[in-house]
Amino acid sequence: MSSMIGEKLRVSLFGQSHGPAVGVVMDGLPAGEEVDLDELRSFLRRRAPGGGPLSTPRVEKDEPRFLSGLAGGRTCGAPLCAVIENTDARPEDYREVATAPRPSHCDYPARLRYGGYEDARGGGHFSGRLTAPLCVAGGVAIQILKRRGVHLGAHAEQVGSARDRRFHPTGVTAGDLALPATRRIPVLDEARAEAMEREIFAAAAEGDSVGGVVECAALGVPAGIGDPIFGGMENRLAAALFGIPGLRGVEFGTGFAAAGIRGSRHNDPYRLKDGRVVTGTNHHGGILGGITTGMPLVFRVAVKPTSSIAMEQKTVDLAAMKERTIHVPGRHDPCIVLRVVPCVEAVAGIVLLDSIL
Amino acid sequence: MSSMIGEKLRVSLFGQSHGPAVGVVMDGLPAGEEVDLDELRSFLRRRAPGGGPLSTPRVEKDEPRFLSGLAGGRTCGAPLCAVIENTDARPEDYREVATAPRPSHCDYPARLRYGGYEDARGGGHFSGRLTAPLCVAGGVAIQILKRRGVHLGAHAEQVGSARDRRFHPTGVTAGDLALPATRRIPVLDEARAEAMEREIFAAAAEGDSVGGVVECAALGVPAGIGDPIFGGMENRLAAALFGIPGLRGVEFGTGFAAAGIRGSRHNDPYRLKDGRVVTGTNHHGGILGGITTGMPLVFRVAVKPTSSIAMEQKTVDLAAMKERTIHVPGRHDPCIVLRVVPCVEAVAGIVLLDSIL
Amino acid sequence: MSSMIGEKLRVSLFGQSHGPAVGVVMDGLPAGEEVDLDELRSFLRRRAPGGGPLSTPRVEKDEPRFLSGLAGGRTCGAPLCAVIENTDARPEDYREVATAPRPSHCDYPARLRYGGYEDARGGGHFSGRLTAPLCVAGGVAIQILKRRGVHLGAHAEQVGSARDRRFHPTGVTAGDLALPATRRIPVLDEARAEAMEREIFAAAAEGDSVGGVVECAALGVPAGIGDPIFGGMENRLAAALFGIPGLRGVEFGTGFAAAGIRGSRHNDPYRLKDGRVVTGTNHHGGILGGITTGMPLVFRVAVKPTSSIAMEQKTVDLAAMKERTIHVPGRHDPCIVLRVVPCVEAVAGIVLLDSIL
Amino acid sequence: MSSMIGEKLRVSLFGQSHGPAVGVVMDGLPAGEEVDLDELRSFLRRRAPGGGPLSTPRVEKDEPRFLSGLAGGRTCGAPLCAVIENTDARPEDYREVATAPRPSHCDYPARLRYGGYEDARGGGHFSGRLTAPLCVAGGVAIQILKRRGVHLGAHAEQVGSARDRRFHPTGVTAGDLALPATRRIPVLDEARAEAMEREIFAAAAEGDSVGGVVECAALGVPAGIGDPIFGGMENRLAAALFGIPGLRGVEFGTGFAAAGIRGSRHNDPYRLKDGRVVTGTNHHGGILGGITTGMPLVFRVAVKPTSSIAMEQKTVDLAAMKERTIHVPGRHDPCIVLRVVPCVEAVAGIVLLDSIL
Repeated sequence: MSSMIGEKLRVSLFGQSHGPAVGVVMDGLPAGEEVDLDELRSFLRRRAPGGGPLSTPRVEKDEPRFLSGLAGGRTCGAPLCAVIENTDARPEDYREVATAPRPSHCDYPARLRYGGYEDARGGGHFSGRLTAPLCVAGGVAIQILKRRGVHLGAHAEQVGSARDRRFHPTGVTAGDLALPATRRIPVLDEARAEAMEREIFAAAAEGDSVGGVVECAALGVPAGIGDPIFGGMENRLAAALFGIPGLRGVEFGTGFAAAGIRGSRHNDPYRLKDGRVVTGTNHHGGILGGITTGMPLVFRVAVKPTSSIAMEQKTVDLAAMKERTIHVPGRHDPCIVLRVVPCVEAVAGIVLLDSIL
Repeated sequence: MSSMIGEKLRVSLFGQSHGPAVGVVMDGLPAGEEVDLDELRSFLRRRAPGGGPLSTPRVEKDEPRFLSGLAGGRTCGAPLCAVIENTDARPEDYREVATAPRPSHCDYPARLRYGGYEDARGGGHFSGRLTAPLCVAGGVAIQILKRRGVHLGAHAEQVGSARDRRFHPTGVTAGDLALPATRRIPVLDEARAEAMEREIFAAAAEGDSVGGVVECAALGVPAGIGDPIFGGMENRLAAALFGIPGLRGVEFGTGFAAAGIRGSRHNDPYRLKDGRVVTGTNHHGGILGGITTGMPLVFRVAVKPTSSIAMEQKTVDLAAMKERTIHVPGRHDPCIVLRVVPCVEAVAGIVLLDSIL
Repeated sequence: MSSMIGEKLRVSLFGQSHGPAVGVVMDGLPAGEEVDLDELRSFLRRRAPGGGPLSTPRVEKDEPRFLSGLAGGRTCGAPLCAVIENTDARPEDYREVATAPRPSHCDYPARLRYGGYEDARGGGHFSGRLTAPLCVAGGVAIQILKRRGVHLGAHAEQVGSARDRRFHPTGVTAGDLALPATRRIPVLDEARAEAMEREIFAAAAEGDSVGGVVECAALGVPAGIGDPIFGGMENRLAAALFGIPGLRGVEFGTGFAAAGIRGSRHNDPYRLKDGRVVTGTNHHGGILGGITTGMPLVFRVAVKPTSSIAMEQKTVDLAAMKERTIHVPGRHDPCIVLRVVPCVEAVAGIVLLDSIL
Repeated sequence: MSSMIGEKLRVSLFGQSHGPAVGVVMDGLPAGEEVDLDELRSFLRRRAPGGGPLSTPRVEKDEPRFLSGLAGGRTCGAPLCAVIENTDARPEDYREVATAPRPSHCDYPARLRYGGYEDARGGGHFSGRLTAPLCVAGGVAIQILKRRGVHLGAHAEQVGSARDRRFHPTGVTAGDLALPATRRIPVLDEARAEAMEREIFAAAAEGDSVGGVVECAALGVPAGIGDPIFGGMENRLAAALFGIPGLRGVEFGTGFAAAGIRGSRHNDPYRLKDGRVVTGTNHHGGILGGITTGMPLVFRVAVKPTSSIAMEQKTVDLAAMKERTIHVPGRHDPCIVLRVVPCVEAVAGIVLLDSIL
């Protein structure tokens, strides 16, 4: 495993936050699929650091260069490799990190894992920067899925204590999945955006950060996709989703709330609707026994508050083996939830395409 | 994937609920490891259907027969295969299921997946019965882990609306992980057991079922285990855990609650304790960036209420394509949470051993 | 890898020569495929030790018991597990082997690999006995392939210095692939059988053994199967074929002889035949760039002379670290080539089915 | 699989002959390993098209740029990605190939495989150009192996009808594995080079090509490496070697010649030498039952004559479905054997490092 995921479609990420470039190889894409670069750029822009008040001041153009896998603008069956150069790297920000690990970052465990040879600058290969090539792969997958009638989208369901409404489990529409690009916060109910912004600004003003929840849904997923036991759609989605830095949990359908509900209510009765078998409710989130039922696929992920905060924190000087304090260097988001939204879509796209192929 | 999991240690399950047998192949076990059959039997007994009032009346002895992989009571490096015969199968209970899918079971999606050729009796390969060989594999893994100083255990943190206390994130002890086998409900705080039993009895009396949450912790996991991005410990654990039927979510450390906490509180400061680097709190649940930190590993899974309930339910006659009602046949637990507890330990054991090897 | 092979169809072998049983798990078989047990038994009989003068006196009925994967005589999509009990095991024959490794067997490297914990009795998991479950898997695969129009067969092209004629590279017929079961030696040209028998009897009379070459062909393999570079059909076939004990080489099409031929002769010109694109010659053996061309697939494997011979041999006492002599114990074939023939078919069946799925 | 290979060390190739670049991702390299770029360049030069009379006139500098995986000149544990830009691409040479497939190239099967969307220019992803990044990966692996005491090397054992001497199966020396870079033909016995050159010049003069055999050996491979059945070293090496374009066979130790030898001669007796267990002969080529014995690892591969020849050849116009003739375009080697030599070393290095890790 490590930095690869997938069975028929294998996605492999490479690169470090402050190295020459980050990139992705996709092996197993069907041949003959058009890659719309403008659409891909729009998708990447949703993840890209904006430089605005809600985001890190690091500015990266995030323009992918395709080294292989395309011929005449279409996939040719060969592995597709896309590279994004790191143009605004500032490795010198991270001199201190080598001996004083930043709390809640992986500096310390990575040091143990790689014996001190890891690239610790900005999290190295563990950095959120790796979600740029992840979104390239996901963006390509989403385009192919669309042509097969599968539409997916995510929104910020929670930021700190502010909440958006949820997707309607049985009534989610294609419109819900395609939020206007102009929306500064990707919420279903625009009226909730302001409360979220307030949470972020308040935290930022104190040098602090907030977390949240991202909800994702997919429509048009064919029924009967997935494999038993370890090959179920929950297994596949979860295995890939935790590749997004900062995720702490995932739940499908009614999720953790199912723990407190009786079976008579949680069970989704089968019904006929326009001659098709559907369920009257969708507590199962579109997956039963690991296999899709044809109902909307719905899941949520928990995002922790950004680990990099401006406040002074306690750590240990690993060279001197003494406790000390640290001011975490670098340029960071007070809240990564907004940027995680397209990343969750990207991962869902990759896993769904892999499972459908 | 499908019914296999693991990289260095590959676990492959086979069997159907009402077929001749269920079993498991473990490929990649280190050679020379003793398998204590008595200890394994005790472990399996915790999962086995008891016939008591809290459990299904199906009685299975669940005695594994080792067909390979052992020589002189120790692993010999060859794949270990263990088989459990199905002795109390009653496939005739399931004639109706073939055309009238049980709500919240995978009868319907499996039918689409396998074109009507699936073994639908009692869920076939998707049945909870497959957790018997899963626990054989897990039980073997847990014995090997113990000899390497890794101890793990789980408890029923929630059953319906009744709750146990949680593991102390930094102070969980080996004692917490080894609950007395005499405890009818596997809880940390014995005083909470009664409320849980009441929930189960109340649901059972109404022909209904309840769900819950299982919490698992591991001590002694070496720091520096895991791989970046898709190879992280969360990815591996989640990918395997959803192989347990009925799971709807997983969260690590503070999990979904992290969404509402500020970074300044969620970040775990590094400290020195007896010359070792530790964190003062353990919101990260022992994993940062996918890699273990040496702190107690803590995660929770959500278990849905048993899908098989005695009440009449709505479904569709797939042959006639007409709505109808169904009384779900078979012998079932009003609450599977108690039996999921050892299954979660089994999966954690398999994944941790695979990652440590 | 280790004892597993395949991508969409995963075949996993288990068992030791003198343990309770040997068996196989096939994960990924399409659902709804009939398994004709009589046909399977005929296939297994070609591999089974006969007890005749050409074969080992060990008698095994080799009757597979299907523990899972079937429902109503057809595959049900769940992993298929078949077990063959070892009924004529004589582990006591192998006491000496533990310290005095048999030349050309893997006793010595296995001891190093598993630290002395390996099951050394009769080669343990490395024994030719494992080809029994391999042939169960292959036999099932071949039945499925036949229904898809793919026919394959092998013959003993060489035994010691005696040779059969080769398959005609472009003109091999379905008849060539289905040799009469009555033929004691599986040759295309029955007149060559006698010379082969003479070689085997002569070697056996001297307590010695002979090797040979097995040639295999497949008709009806769809064109365009296989993946680039490491996923080519040669890669897949070779990776699986060396799972048969005693194989020392594999060559495709003209193979090693291509080294001495000019390109102008080795290149296969394209032609039209009945409106289909074919090649006039078939030096490429049906595979170009790893991908099938639709021409007959042809390859050969080299089989070493049986390692177990009755003559006294030199070895080392590993306990005393002294040179000594050994009489290899057990019951053995003077020539395994004849029994390798169905094994090669089995492997080809598994790989082709995996690639076509 | 497809363009990836390996278990602990995964090597993934990308790129097309006339696309922007070719490259490789290596995932699973140990951290802290120095990469000596000068040594790597020397290694790559042995594969690179020279422009001399023995080689294609296409000139590529083949300078790898490392995008990731290094920090301070050492591996950092993150996936290593190296890219080589294609600077002398001439895609316009290949207009005709789209409809008139070149004999013995994969134009035709690739067209069937990818439905006409493949990049057919110069073989696209199937081109020998992909051996450039393969050699980058192999060159890095070989440097790491050297530091662990494993030395490997290959030579042209046969070119057309001219032959070099073979490695001495038990007495191959480190010197044999490090041929002087000045040697125009990589042979053990320099006196044989002239005959080989004559074969190549003679073929080239007639617009024709020649094939050959490459022999490879490795010293210092630890005993006890490899897994049973499908995980044996032969399986792993073969699975990877056929990733080199033009290979038609592989044999280990005595290989196909073992078919004609009696067991009493082919069996390698164990002996003691300086207190170590060795074999007196090495017919087994350092591998028994898939596991290394500590004796020199020896294998050979058959290389077909270059498919691209200057002579007119017969093919089919796939658009018009008419037979026609073709002059194969592009710039080509009359003999690829010499350039295959370092490729075989590269593959052996990758597989050995993967198996040793």
